Amino acid sequence: MPIDRLTVPPLDHALRAPLQERLDHKTKPVGALGRLEELALQLGLIQDTLRPRLVRPHVLVCAGDHGAAKAGISAYPQEVTWQMVENFLAGGAAINVLARRAGLELVVADAGVNHDFGPRPGLIDAKVALGTANYLDGAAMTTAQCATAMERGASVVESLSKQGVNALGFGEMGIGNTAAASLITHCLTGLALDACVGRGTGLDDAGLKRKRELLARAVAAWADRRDTPLEVLARFGGFEIAMLAGAMIAAAHARMVLLIDGFIVTSALLVAQRLQPAVLEYCVFAHRSDEAAHRFQLEHLKARPLLDLGLRLGEGTGVALAYPLVASACAMLEEMASFESAGVSSRE
Amino acid sequence: MPIDRLTVPPLDHALRAPLQERLDHKTKPVGALGRLEELALQLGLIQDTLRPRLVRPHVLVCAGDHGAAKAGISAYPQEVTWQMVENFLAGGAAINVLARRAGLELVVADAGVNHDFGPRPGLIDAKVALGTANYLDGAAMTTAQCATAMERGASVVESLSKQGVNALGFGEMGIGNTAAASLITHCLTGLALDACVGRGTGLDDAGLKRKRELLARAVAAWADRRDTPLEVLARFGGFEIAMLAGAMIAAAHARMVLLIDGFIVTSALLVAQRLQPAVLEYCVFAHRSDEAAHRFQLEHLKARPLLDLGLRLGEGTGVALAYPLVASACAMLEEMASFESAGVSSRE
Repeated sequence: MPIDRLTVPPLDHALRAPLQERLDHKTKPVGALGRLEELALQLGLIQDTLRPRLVRPHVLVCAGDHGAAKAGISAYPQEVTWQMVENFLAGGAAINVLARRAGLELVVADAGVNHDFGPRPGLIDAKVALGTANYLDGAAMTTAQCATAMERGASVVESLSKQGVNALGFGEMGIGNTAAASLITHCLTGLALDACVGRGTGLDDAGLKRKRELLARAVAAWADRRDTPLEVLARFGGFEIAMLAGAMIAAAHARMVLLIDGFIVTSALLVAQRLQPAVLEYCVFAHRSDEAAHRFQLEHLKARPLLDLGLRLGEGTGVALAYPLVASACAMLEEMASFESAGVSSRE
Repeated sequence: MPIDRLTVPPLDHALRAPLQERLDHKTKPVGALGRLEELALQLGLIQDTLRPRLVRPHVLVCAGDHGAAKAGISAYPQEVTWQMVENFLAGGAAINVLARRAGLELVVADAGVNHDFGPRPGLIDAKVALGTANYLDGAAMTTAQCATAMERGASVVESLSKQGVNALGFGEMGIGNTAAASLITHCLTGLALDACVGRGTGLDDAGLKRKRELLARAVAAWADRRDTPLEVLARFGGFEIAMLAGAMIAAAHARMVLLIDGFIVTSALLVAQRLQPAVLEYCVFAHRSDEAAHRFQLEHLKARPLLDLGLRLGEGTGVALAYPLVASACAMLEEMASFESAGVSSRE
């Protein structure tokens, strides 16, 4: 289905009061479980029920390569993208380990990696092209490629939804994609470009300076610049970012709980929320990453992350670490006794 | 064993460099998993191995009543302590739900609840007395009672250690125990009393004012005040706080990983670390609670908590919510592939 046919309705808040009442009767002082109570409330509203459940939670990791990666915007060579996809498939990457621990199933999608994987069990072939074009020379992708990547993201989500999945985390892999995320963040939030550019996975001072210069050139090279979400995404985006943006809209459309990871995933959300503002109501923000501009993205979206652990890895690792809090919130609402059922006196 | 026979040796840091090297070869940029990497390193140092494992992690919840509770320092009546112990035994409290989710086994101990439970499966009878005396009139407990409570805490831990348990979280229940924790924190850190006193489980402004006045009277009533840890503990402590302090020393002595919950548990740690300063090296601080003085306690101990979720429930709920991060750190160190094993290129 074309992505612009997928709408995201704002949440109906009719159950807010009864959900709050249910929380307030649990054997604890009112509000004493803090953010956990807010999460439980949000889950109830998303699922429009007093008894939300989390079914087969997944994390979707989209991978793609960036034409600009060879220009020197990353501490790592481009082939690390496909090598890390192989690592995901072999089960040895951080996201494999952390998703297993958290009870999250992992889905890996090739949105546009510069490598021929061939047909591979466990890898969704959503490849749009062998990496994007270099945005220093023109648009990273055509309008049609951008739409294709988004639709493939939506399609993966529709398939998961049919299997009953109702909670979906988002992760990514793509050498050079913090640069793309910086450019998207600059264009869609208005934050000064330099403030949007960070060290990614570990640039040194000289590398950071070079990255800032290259990205300033990339912005300057866009003669007919228009800061609308789809134009920005096509100009600077990675296929993995476009795929994620489409997947997010489809996930909210399907009333899933969306678990948002770090800087790059949030750049995809900036696109998704400009297209479908209500998508934010379905989002749980897993963490605040160590990439400086992620803090700004979160403030821009008025989002409060659950964790702040100095992560800067991506892959959805923050999602996997935060998921147990979401599951705990759900269990708390379902399993905790009430003052009445437990025979505990309430306040004097 | 008398508590003063249990010593806590400082950690041997000989494995720091090889542990760091092991982390740095994992398929991620150096340091990209932030706090998770620090946790993995700490686990390795505590267990003095490159391959730490977490065995049968438990949370120990100690309950006790406070003679001062009837003076109006809590929003809840004293009988809530025993009622909540019953709730723990029935499996309906927040800590039951969250410990189950986290894979933590729960042990509940009666350190001195004002209630006769009789012999009860699942409840450790460590009762010193039917609640402490009122510290507005004298010491909350005798020196001998204080030692007994601490030794009973140590004894429970020794028994867990014999079963192979090597990770132990601490929780508490006791109406009035935020007041005791405030007094202990005031005496052992020097922070002004008013700054140590908060709303506990939910006092309103008038209740907070009354609590501050009562606690100022309690301090003034201590004519021969001596701010040594055991004297402070006996003067103001709850039996559950003394039991926790003894349990912490025994747990560090047994080289367990100690998971520290909120304000009241940290007040027990203030006692334990004054007796055995090295205990801090074995501690993982689960969260920063909503009780204002907990932030100060953490700063005093130079501790950085993992979570900041506005919790103010106690019971060890913060421990249960943070434990998945500790388990994830351990799994990451053990299960993640290295650049070499996964065939991934490292930095250019």
